[in-house]
Amino acid sequence: MKRREWLATAASLSSLAALGGLAGCASAPLRGTGDLGTVIGRANGTLYIVDTSTRALLGEVKGLGDLSHASVVYSRDGLFAFVFGRDGALTRVNLLEQRITHRVMQAGNSIGGAISADGTLVAAQNYTPGGIKVFDARTLELLADVPAAYAPGKLSRVVGLVDLPGRRFAYSLFDADAIWVTDCSDPRHPVTQKFEGIGRQPYDALVTPNGRHYIAGLFGEDGLAMIDLWADQPTVRRILGGYGKGQQPLPVYKMPHLRGWAVAGRHAYLPAIGRHEVLVVDTESWAEVARIPVAGQPVFVMARPDGGQVWVNFSVPDYHRVQVVDTRNQAVIRTLEPGKAVLHMEFTPRGEAVWISSRDDNRVSVIDTRSMATLARLDVPAPSGIFFTSRAARMGF
Amino acid sequence: MKRREWLATAASLSSLAALGGLAGCASAPLRGTGDLGTVIGRANGTLYIVDTSTRALLGEVKGLGDLSHASVVYSRDGLFAFVFGRDGALTRVNLLEQRITHRVMQAGNSIGGAISADGTLVAAQNYTPGGIKVFDARTLELLADVPAAYAPGKLSRVVGLVDLPGRRFAYSLFDADAIWVTDCSDPRHPVTQKFEGIGRQPYDALVTPNGRHYIAGLFGEDGLAMIDLWADQPTVRRILGGYGKGQQPLPVYKMPHLRGWAVAGRHAYLPAIGRHEVLVVDTESWAEVARIPVAGQPVFVMARPDGGQVWVNFSVPDYHRVQVVDTRNQAVIRTLEPGKAVLHMEFTPRGEAVWISSRDDNRVSVIDTRSMATLARLDVPAPSGIFFTSRAARMGF
Repeated sequence: MKRREWLATAASLSSLAALGGLAGCASAPLRGTGDLGTVIGRANGTLYIVDTSTRALLGEVKGLGDLSHASVVYSRDGLFAFVFGRDGALTRVNLLEQRITHRVMQAGNSIGGAISADGTLVAAQNYTPGGIKVFDARTLELLADVPAAYAPGKLSRVVGLVDLPGRRFAYSLFDADAIWVTDCSDPRHPVTQKFEGIGRQPYDALVTPNGRHYIAGLFGEDGLAMIDLWADQPTVRRILGGYGKGQQPLPVYKMPHLRGWAVAGRHAYLPAIGRHEVLVVDTESWAEVARIPVAGQPVFVMARPDGGQVWVNFSVPDYHRVQVVDTRNQAVIRTLEPGKAVLHMEFTPRGEAVWISSRDDNRVSVIDTRSMATLARLDVPAPSGIFFTSRAARMGF
Repeated sequence: MKRREWLATAASLSSLAALGGLAGCASAPLRGTGDLGTVIGRANGTLYIVDTSTRALLGEVKGLGDLSHASVVYSRDGLFAFVFGRDGALTRVNLLEQRITHRVMQAGNSIGGAISADGTLVAAQNYTPGGIKVFDARTLELLADVPAAYAPGKLSRVVGLVDLPGRRFAYSLFDADAIWVTDCSDPRHPVTQKFEGIGRQPYDALVTPNGRHYIAGLFGEDGLAMIDLWADQPTVRRILGGYGKGQQPLPVYKMPHLRGWAVAGRHAYLPAIGRHEVLVVDTESWAEVARIPVAGQPVFVMARPDGGQVWVNFSVPDYHRVQVVDTRNQAVIRTLEPGKAVLHMEFTPRGEAVWISSRDDNRVSVIDTRSMATLARLDVPAPSGIFFTSRAARMGF
């Protein structure tokens, strides 16, 4: 986006006050990037840039294509956002100049990505063609293409991609019942370790904050697959097998998400597929220790950075609600209704506030996680994912 | 520092290549702040600004006074460093413009500070006059002065200051055997909760990454004092009582530091005062579960962000060494000698590297935490503390 276009666009924004900082420099504002973030404009292919200190919209970048299931990772310095579009586009955006610097159509159907711990490699996970592709974070030059080939002529859809320490990525093969770990230490010659028969249809995954346990949810059966990556010889272990067994399965309205941390203290909080429950798992024994009844089928189950609370949103028809769990006693302490069609939540780096997108109310709400007061509301057309630059400093996001 | 002075200064730096980025803007470089940091020039009152992506020195800011025991916290956006000098000065530095924006002499003898979770309040902990002072982070205007008065006419030296969620600060009174928690929700009317008789001479403290447990080390007796801040009625509990009892005490060459996180998984790693040992504590039972013999009296015991390693440096005469503990088996796996008089260590945000200052070799070393290879060496005169902007996103730093 050119400077002139940017100004025309900016004039339409609701938060013109936030633009004062632009005067200091001819090309972009002199400001830090630690409190920046982005909100996906799901319907209009636009990335909205926000400031979590002033709780204001700073600008927007258009032309990002189909963002219906988009996600974002950040460069180490917090200057560049890498946006993974559903249409297979990977776009690099300069947040201060508010413009696209690089853009490649890298697949036909993509479902997110990750950035290596050292910030040099960006990886995309693709449905079509199934596999991952690894790019130079500075130029988006393709460095490695790892097709998820599991049988002659067959490529699996890839889900649950996360970064691991040491330029490695872990991901799951939905159609191949497998987890792969690819080491890109030499990015043009990636080395992949394959774990087969992990359980039917892994649909998403998370890595624990310490990078130790990779956990994939299974859609084709009850339970999750877990790998202890710190073991000398990592193997796959089934956890929570049969958590819904013998009970009438509910229709699944939306696949839950596991991405991001849902680990608080020694417990992991996981959405039960199709059930109105959050499962609580001990991260030492990996046994279920509690189930928390919630207001619908959970989609995101996210721990506040300090682990004191877990916030949950829901699929249709309960997606106007958000529930807050107190991790001291595993009880729901609050039910909020921040707007219609809650699609995502993101905590500020130290967790004093949470940002929540309500797609059908064209609104992002900022809520104090202690008082539960609404601190701000931002007008954003059909917002979905919210991503703050503090993700750059954390593993597995 | 004026622009002209800055250029003159910059010419003397070893990393001129890093200055290329300055060309983009008349007043300061267009760049993110997420990968910036500072190194204290202990002997010359200078703050050195570094880039953890290029592992280069970017510039320096002079005139910060006595930095012999200085520490730094950051604004939420990563643009401003707040430097607490030993002489009682509090200085606010713009990292991109490389200049001082505000500076106050707020005490006669100061020992560090903290910034509130929401980034609005900066607090200094002082020896003379004993107490804390709270400032507006934008202007350094004094908002609250809380003298550590514990008897008529007596003010205690304050140590172990940390931020807690919700604009609160916890700190310890060395001379009063007390821990205070001050709530600055209304900063001009702070409310202080006092815990008395916590044990003799608390000398430093830490808060666990979840903000739940505040732990003060005791110089006047064996053991530590701990408060569970999540309890409905927090009380002080003694942990590790008598860990050195019955053994010949060693002379203490330098007080260990507790600041920063030394929590990895469910264990906390703590320096044993005067002993060549690191104590390992279970953070659920708060019982000692192991002791790790190390190469000297530990000063800093710091967990890599993923908790997979704990790094330890030492007091005289062993302060040319650094040891690395593998937390899987609590064993020292490596002893490094990065230079003379190792004073501080700082991990990159995701822990792929650690920066180590060697005062008497006028060197900062950057070391890969997996291969243990030295990735870079920077020439810095008498470096001590190293602080990265990623601290802004974390509690208790």
